[in-house]
Amino acid sequence: MSDEPTDTFPATERTTIGRSPLRGTRQRATANAILDEGLICHVGLTADHGPVVIPTTYARRGDELLIHGSPAATWLRSTGKGTPVCVTVTHVDGLVLARSGFHHSMNYRSVVVFGTAETVTDHGDKAAALDAIVEHIVPGRTPEIRPMTDDEITKTLVLRLPLAEASVKVRDGGPIDDDADYELPDVWAGVIPMTTTFGTPIDDERLLPGIDAPPSAVAYTR
Amino acid sequence: MSDEPTDTFPATERTTIGRSPLRGTRQRATANAILDEGLICHVGLTADHGPVVIPTTYARRGDELLIHGSPAATWLRSTGKGTPVCVTVTHVDGLVLARSGFHHSMNYRSVVVFGTAETVTDHGDKAAALDAIVEHIVPGRTPEIRPMTDDEITKTLVLRLPLAEASVKVRDGGPIDDDADYELPDVWAGVIPMTTTFGTPIDDERLLPGIDAPPSAVAYTR
Repeated sequence: MSDEPTDTFPATERTTIGRSPLRGTRQRATANAILDEGLICHVGLTADHGPVVIPTTYARRGDELLIHGSPAATWLRSTGKGTPVCVTVTHVDGLVLARSGFHHSMNYRSVVVFGTAETVTDHGDKAAALDAIVEHIVPGRTPEIRPMTDDEITKTLVLRLPLAEASVKVRDGGPIDDDADYELPDVWAGVIPMTTTFGTPIDDERLLPGIDAPPSAVAYTR
Repeated sequence: MSDEPTDTFPATERTTIGRSPLRGTRQRATANAILDEGLICHVGLTADHGPVVIPTTYARRGDELLIHGSPAATWLRSTGKGTPVCVTVTHVDGLVLARSGFHHSMNYRSVVVFGTAETVTDHGDKAAALDAIVEHIVPGRTPEIRPMTDDEITKTLVLRLPLAEASVKVRDGGPIDDDADYELPDVWAGVIPMTTTFGTPIDDERLLPGIDAPPSAVAYTR
């Protein structure tokens, strides 16, 4: 595949198989929107004893993911060649109640990224990546806080994963039932919508008097 | 380890390492509560080309997880000996805004289960497992719907994973800042709480007239 990103992800063996091809898309714009809305990803890697899946924070920067690697640090084998990973971000938007158990489903959006993650070693790159992760989670937060120290940057592990190969799935809408089941009397079917809401910021109990929550927190939304 | 479940998970090599031991617990009751609240898990396994992480539905039944394996079907290698997997369920409860980027965090609850998943082959077992998954997602739903057919049961893949080895982490409360940073003027710190809410059920557009949404949907909560 070309190094030049296009509007779509390439069709590779591991992104073309699966049981629901109709829900798949190759659009980068769709993937980017899912990734930008997400708060955590699930990072999968193969450790000595087998597969491990760890939740952690991340940010998308253009055509790469920057992953807070510290939670996965103990599992990463330092081969010098990077670590094969699979990083998945999933949003559940609703429960789909069909007329049969078989057709029950969820409305969801997911991106499954395959690739080789490398540790970000350059100090300046890493500082920028860590700021990007903070900004991904709380936009506008970095100018409000004490800047990171060199020691903090050194102690934190950041992984970089190119957004080059990904499987994107979106399911939306009501249940799809068997034809005969639509005539079943008394069986309700539909969708229970599900949303994430953010509440009023809670002051730290050691907050100095007279400091109000900033707009980044008060007006928080995703 | 004994076959007899105890109140706590055993300390194994892969459940004792990690960077935040203070957030860990071995209590099965805590793990069960996290698993019972969750809607989806992220299943990690090692395919021929490397790690894969797939979101899917599941249910806890006593000391085992029943996992809807169909989304992962194409990745499972039929070795006859089961498949080593890692299954993770994560809830994010809040964003923790500290006075430095380094101490930003999230309040979360996660269970990481390690083990070997086996396919449920017995037809009756599988039927019961599929009903358990529907009931896990929408309690009270199975009596409301058309029962599963033998063909549907045959076509669906269910994995069984013992809840024998798991890492449980819970973070709660406000930011933990460096001592000196508590004196920073003008830097707000605290928590943005995050909750999942379920809306009014939306009727399927092909719903027969006169069928109201049942209590399982109207009063849905987790």
